[in-house]
Order: sequence, then C-alpha cells, then structure tokens
Amino acid sequence: MIQGYDPRTGEPVGEPVAETTDAEVDAIVAAAAAAFPSWGSDAATPGRAAALDAVADALDERAGELAAIADTETALGGERLIGEVARTTGQLRLFSGVLRDGSYADAAFTAAEGVVPDLRRINRPAGPVAVFAASNFPFAFSVAGGDTASALAAGCPVVVKAHEGHPVTSGLTAEIVTGALASAGAPAGTFGLVHGVQAGLRLLAHPAISAAGFTGSTAGGLALARIAAERPVPIPFYGELGSVNPCVVLPGAAFARPAGVATGYVGSLTLGSGQFCTNPGLLFVPEDVGLLSAIAEAAGSSQGGAMLSARIFAGYENAVAEAVAHPGVTELAVGKPGPGPWGATPRVFQVSLKEFAAGLAVLSRERFGPAGLVITYPSVEDLLPVLAALPGNLVGTVHVDTDSPDDLELARPVIAVLERVAGRLVCNGWPTGVAVVAAQHHGGPFPATTVPAYTSVGTAAIRRWLVPVAYQNFPPALLPPALR
Amino acid sequence: MIQGYDPRTGEPVGEPVAETTDAEVDAIVAAAAAAFPSWGSDAATPGRAAALDAVADALDERAGELAAIADTETALGGERLIGEVARTTGQLRLFSGVLRDGSYADAAFTAAEGVVPDLRRINRPAGPVAVFAASNFPFAFSVAGGDTASALAAGCPVVVKAHEGHPVTSGLTAEIVTGALASAGAPAGTFGLVHGVQAGLRLLAHPAISAAGFTGSTAGGLALARIAAERPVPIPFYGELGSVNPCVVLPGAAFARPAGVATGYVGSLTLGSGQFCTNPGLLFVPEDVGLLSAIAEAAGSSQGGAMLSARIFAGYENAVAEAVAHPGVTELAVGKPGPGPWGATPRVFQVSLKEFAAGLAVLSRERFGPAGLVITYPSVEDLLPVLAALPGNLVGTVHVDTDSPDDLELARPVIAVLERVAGRLVCNGWPTGVAVVAAQHHGGPFPATTVPAYTSVGTAAIRRWLVPVAYQNFPPALLPPALR
Repeated sequence: MIQGYDPRTGEPVGEPVAETTDAEVDAIVAAAAAAFPSWGSDAATPGRAAALDAVADALDERAGELAAIADTETALGGERLIGEVARTTGQLRLFSGVLRDGSYADAAFTAAEGVVPDLRRINRPAGPVAVFAASNFPFAFSVAGGDTASALAAGCPVVVKAHEGHPVTSGLTAEIVTGALASAGAPAGTFGLVHGVQAGLRLLAHPAISAAGFTGSTAGGLALARIAAERPVPIPFYGELGSVNPCVVLPGAAFARPAGVATGYVGSLTLGSGQFCTNPGLLFVPEDVGLLSAIAEAAGSSQGGAMLSARIFAGYENAVAEAVAHPGVTELAVGKPGPGPWGATPRVFQVSLKEFAAGLAVLSRERFGPAGLVITYPSVEDLLPVLAALPGNLVGTVHVDTDSPDDLELARPVIAVLERVAGRLVCNGWPTGVAVVAAQHHGGPFPATTVPAYTSVGTAAIRRWLVPVAYQNFPPALLPPALR
Repeated sequence: MIQGYDPRTGEPVGEPVAETTDAEVDAIVAAAAAAFPSWGSDAATPGRAAALDAVADALDERAGELAAIADTETALGGERLIGEVARTTGQLRLFSGVLRDGSYADAAFTAAEGVVPDLRRINRPAGPVAVFAASNFPFAFSVAGGDTASALAAGCPVVVKAHEGHPVTSGLTAEIVTGALASAGAPAGTFGLVHGVQAGLRLLAHPAISAAGFTGSTAGGLALARIAAERPVPIPFYGELGSVNPCVVLPGAAFARPAGVATGYVGSLTLGSGQFCTNPGLLFVPEDVGLLSAIAEAAGSSQGGAMLSARIFAGYENAVAEAVAHPGVTELAVGKPGPGPWGATPRVFQVSLKEFAAGLAVLSRERFGPAGLVITYPSVEDLLPVLAALPGNLVGTVHVDTDSPDDLELARPVIAVLERVAGRLVCNGWPTGVAVVAAQHHGGPFPATTVPAYTSVGTAAIRRWLVPVAYQNFPPALLPPALR
C-alpha cells in the first residue's frame, strides 16, 4: 500500500492506495496499445487538441480542491499550488495550440527529379509512452504535467507511474483527466495511472511501451535508464536526473551590486525549500569580502520550509553532512529551520576554488534542498578550467555588470564554457523558474538529462514522442493528408 | 596489422596497415577536442561550408584513383565505385548547402512578456564525435561518408574508425580529407582516422567523445551501443544495425504485372550481391502460382557477385543454411554463383504465412546477401498481424495496382501497419537506393536503428550532432550572432 504523509506533521493523510498489480499494469498498457491506432491517427489531430483543452478546463474547474489536497501531501502552500495547477493547464493548452499550428509534424517534401523519387516525410507518434511523475511538482511534472501533455498531443497514449509522495493528488488528477478525455471522445485506454515501484518497473519493460519520460533522482533515473536500454527492444528514456546549476558572479557585478546578488541568490536557493532541479547549488564569486558578508547576512535570515518527504529530508541531511565534512569547506551561514519533522534548514558553505577543484567529484554532487556552496575564485582565468570540468547541468548563470567593458570581456569565455556544461544560460537572473514557451530548453548534458538534445518544458517537448516516416513514390490517395 | 584482401581472388592487396595504439587514439581524440572550440564556433560556420566543398573537390579530383583502389578491396566494380565517390562528394556539398541555408540551427525566439523572460534558443555542435565506417559502402558510409559530412557540418570534429575491409581506401581517403581541410584553414585535429577493433572501443569510451555514428551488423552494433550507454557519461549512439525490409505485393499488382514484380524484386535482391541494409529480405505475395513461377524464373537466371569479405561470405552461407533447414521452408530458385572464393549464389526460398509466423523470430533475421524469403499469404487480413509482429526495418514496400479500387482499399491497412515497423515506405518500387535529399528518412524502429527518430541519410542527418542551448535575458552583445 502507498501512504501519503503531511510534511508539516509527518502524519499519514488520506487513505492508503493499493499498488497496481502486474496483471493490472498489463491490462492498462494493453488498453493504451489498443487506443493508439485511433488516438494517434491523422484524423484524430483536431480531436486531440479539443481533448487537451477539455482536460485543462476540467482541471481548472477543480483547481481549489486539487491544490488543497496537494497541500496536505506536499506542504508547498496554497498559493504555489493554485499557481501550479494554472501552469499545468497552461501547458495542456499550449500543446493544443501546437497541434493547431501543425509545424511539429515537420513535413518535408522532395520532388521527383531524374533518379530522385518523390519523397515526403512527416512525424508520426512513437506509440504508447510511460511517464514517471516527480515529487516536487505535484501537478506540472506529475500526472497531468508536461510529459503527459506533450505525449498526448503527439498522439501517444500515456501511462503515468504516480509519485509515492502524493498518491491522493495523483488519483484525483487521473480521475479528472480520464473523465475529461472520455467526455471529449478519446478512446478508452488513452490515459492510465499505476502506483508503486514494481508497477513502474513492469511498465517500463512492457513491450508495448515505446518511450519513457522521467523526472527524479540520479540514482533512480540511472536504474530506469538501464532497464530501458537493456530491453529486448530498447526504447528512448528521456530522464531528468540531477543538476547543480553553476552561477558565476563576475567581479564587476560583485562590486556593483553585492546586496542584489546576495538576496537574489538566497531567494532562489531557498525557494520551495530548495526542492527544484534548477536550484543554484554552486555559486562562484570573486574573492570579495563584501559579497560574502552580504550572502552570509541574507542566508542567515532566510527561512526553511517543510521538505516533501522523510526520504528527501534524510537525503538533504546526508548531503549537508557530506559537504561540511569535506576538506576546506566552512560554514558561511545557517538559516532558520522549516516546520515539522522534515523542516529543512538553509545552509550556505564556502570553499576556495582550489579546494573545490580538488574535491570536484564530491562537491559538485546535487544537494537537493536549500544548501548552497559558494566557491571563491582568484581570477576568471583560474575559474574557466574548473567550470569546464563540471558535470552537465540544466542551467548555467552569469552575473555581469553590463556597464563595465571589463566585465563584458570576462563574460565571453565564461559563457563559452557554460554553453558546454548547461542547456540554458541565464544572464543577471537566477536559474529557478522555467518559462513554458517555444524557445525554452529544459535539458542539458548528462546527468542533467539522459538525452541532451531534448527538452521536457516548452513546445519542443513534443519532439520526444515523435518519429519520422518517409513516403516514396506514393499515390496521393495513399499519402497521409498533410503530405498530399 | 590490418590486411585488405581482393574479394575476386582472396589474395592480400596493398601493404598491411598498423592498428592504432591506445596512446595514438588518445592523441587523436585530444587533437579533436582541441580543434572543437574553433571548428565548432559560430564564426567558423562560413569556413566550415567552404571546407566541406574543398573536401568534395579534392575527392572528386582523385575519384578514378580512389575507385580503382576500392575495387581491389571490395570488388564492387568501377562504375558503382565512381558513382559512389560522386554520391559522397554530393553529400559533402549538400551539407555545405545546409550550413549556408542556416535553418538547421532551429533558432527560436520568445519575447519577454509579464513574468516570461526574453528567451532565445539555438542548436550548437555536440562536440567531437566518433564514426564507425561500414563495409558495404567504401565511400558513402565510410571515412568521408554521410556521418562524417553531417558531423563536420554541425561543427563537430570527427574521428573515424576505419572498416577492416578496405584499409587502403580508408587511408587514402583520410589523407585527402585531412589535406583539403588543412588547406581550407580547418584547425589540426578536425578530422582523424583510427584502425582496429581495440582502437574503436577506446575511441567510443573516450571522455572527450560526445556522440557516435555506426553502420554495421546487429551484433557489433549492440556491443558498441552497450559501451556507449555504460560510460560514466553515456553518449548517444546512432547505430544502423540490420533490416529485412518487408515488401508486400497486393493481389491486384500480382495479377496485373507478375513479370515486372518478379524482375524488379530479383534485381533489388541481387544488386551489389545483396550487400545493402535496404535489401528486400522478405517478400509477401498472394498465393499465386503465376507470380511464384515468374520469381523462380528471374531468380534462377540471376548472377551473384563476389562478397566483400570471407567473414561476410561465411555469414551469408550460415544464414542460408539456417533458412533452408527451417520447417516449412523450401527452395524456390538458385542463381549463378559469383566469382572467387567468396562468390555469393543468389537464393530464393518459399514459405507459407503460417509457417513463417510460427518461425518468425528466426525467419525475420537479416540474411546479409542475395537471399530472399518469399512468404505466401492467403489474405491481407491474415497478413496484417504477421507484418505487425516484424522487428523494426529501414524500409517497407507495398506493390499495389493503383487502377484497382480493391487493391487501393487493401493497401490502406497494410500501410498503416508498415508505418509502425519501418522508417521509409515505398510504393510500387524497391527498397534499395536511398536518395540523399531533404525529405529522406533512413532510420527505423529497433533494430533497424538504435535511435529511431534520427536519419543517417539526407539533410536531417545533421540533427544527430546538435544540441540546443537557450539564452535567457541576455544582452545582445553576449548572444550568439544568429540570435541577436
């Protein structure tokens, strides 16, 4: 049985949810496979757009109820959760717009000429997909989140493996999604939900599943990626595993606005108790006493929150202990602990660039929660090779005084390195907050994502669920309508 | 040492070539990594286009010499090999055109609005890549083939692992490529060549390699794919492993043009001694005596050729023996053996749909060479589930009498199934022959390719070597020029 807990008290909330049995998983996947020819057909495209809008409307209608339940299971707060439902329904509507626009199909035409035959190519849905929900976004990266929205839009039936952290929220969301899809005329089996680790493993290994999306821990993601790769027929595993998101403060920015940098940093670090894959885990600053004391001050007065689960809290405590025990690492500031048994205490550590480089393998590990490591660098020249040695990240940030020609010059090589170690670069901002728009890229070199060319946020997220098919020398009557 | 052999005699040709040592591989990859910042930079894009043209010109200048040497190592014949050099230089020029066109960069812009920041996204080169050359196309899928051309165009330095079957051709091609790149101003290390299995393994595992392309056997490709997946930092492995390319002849086409179908089929089956990944390994025909006898006649008078190597010949003989020993399989026709010790004899076998379905796992294996299996089906209704159970393929073909409404109706469900088991569908043609054009898709479900969304032929092949980076809130001065 899967039991949700209230992070503010550690007490169980809601009824325990049964784990999905092997036979049930098989039946759900079989229903998804049976739905695929209809849901994924060319003729269904306008209906899919309408169905996505219907799902969005149905979730919006019950946003208050959904947020209230999710708050008992996640303690993320009503305001954040109401906003997250809106983000989630916004994503669904974004993808209905993608379908209506049509360019996701990437239709290509080559006319016959000499020995070259008439060739026409178009993207087709990959088949039923598995989605592994995340803990830290109970709506936007969960049952009806971006993976589900983009895969349904592509024409792929979706089976979600619910996250253990919010089983009741997951069940209610699935009920609303299933009802809205049915009312919109989608075939039964277009959407399914399974609960439990074993159910997730069986789902991923099922021969009828064509691809999988995952947001979660590096250890869990690597284990699932291995299963996907070792199937008799391997499938793409689009995993988002972990990221420390290096932020570089250049000397001009440190000098010009120490207080702004410090408060911005601490705000981003402690947002949502630091439970974001885009959390600014590493901050590289010049050896500047003023900025360090501003950071110490801002972090010292920061407030922690309740973490999502006992497991995440324990992981955070272990990661903090590992950091503080590392040679050369000293404590710069300790914030106020969050409420309840899993209340996180914001912590900021300090280390020299030299000591960081010596311990890079350990010190560049993700510490999921409000723990920041500030690395003091003597010069940008010294900094560059250390940045280049970082593992892959979702986001890299640079703070630059754009009025200073020196700072702009220093920024160029830093950006050239960050482009190689992160999928999104932010200038004079912070990595948390991922806009759901066409130009977004929420991906990055391994281990940030397992397939770095793809994004899980924004309209391009649909590309994960599509495969091209080319038609050679076809009579118009037998071509897909979009290729005639 | 690696020794080439003349397939017409089995005798050694040319001097043996030394295997590349571990230290040499490391030095070649280090040079590629050192070349990357310059070769892959935005500023280098026009220079890359000119360099690709220069490589094409240099190869064209020595086409006769290249073809003559390749003929001694492959016995593919002067006409085919001269044509293949032209195809290869055509590919290089196609990609210089792709660079000048610029749309491969997939630039995307989202303007700032409310809480949405200014976001701009563009494709960047993935980094140095490894290319594993194929045996059966000593130019077009070898040292300067499509993988190399597309990767160099993307801005990725390339290290090719030469195929053991044509070491001298590989060495001369590499010499021409290296010289032309140097004359065109490309940094040293932009292109490298290694020889030997061990060198290939070390190359694939090297931390500085960002992706790999492979064309070859299923067994070899799976072994390399596993290495790529199990690296500390896994990399994409774009492998083309094996394909039986089902061809379906519908009743109307079988009735209307049995002789045309039979001669077209046998021509495609025996082309290049059947040594094509697009070879028509499975032909599904109605239970029609006339068509079967036409196929038997055409195949019986067909001529085999010398196969590329002792290993490939042995593999062919084993595959033929396995097929002929299978329950229900009977011999339909035997052609004339090719010359020399590795001369292939074209063979066509026959089996009922029922027996084929019972032995599908074995009978749907690739038999690399001019061996065809003709499967007689009682009705399209019976055929569909068998087609749907096939492993993934590069090509699926349907022969239909377009003047017959009945045949057109039967074609629809066949196409709907083939779309799921093949990456390219051909109507009233044959699968061999892959046009190098924008709308091409030379990929397919596993095991045809390991990453079915990508193609290794045509302009879209460049996408394998690109990763997006998004820039948030960047001052114009720090943006890549194409995003300003």
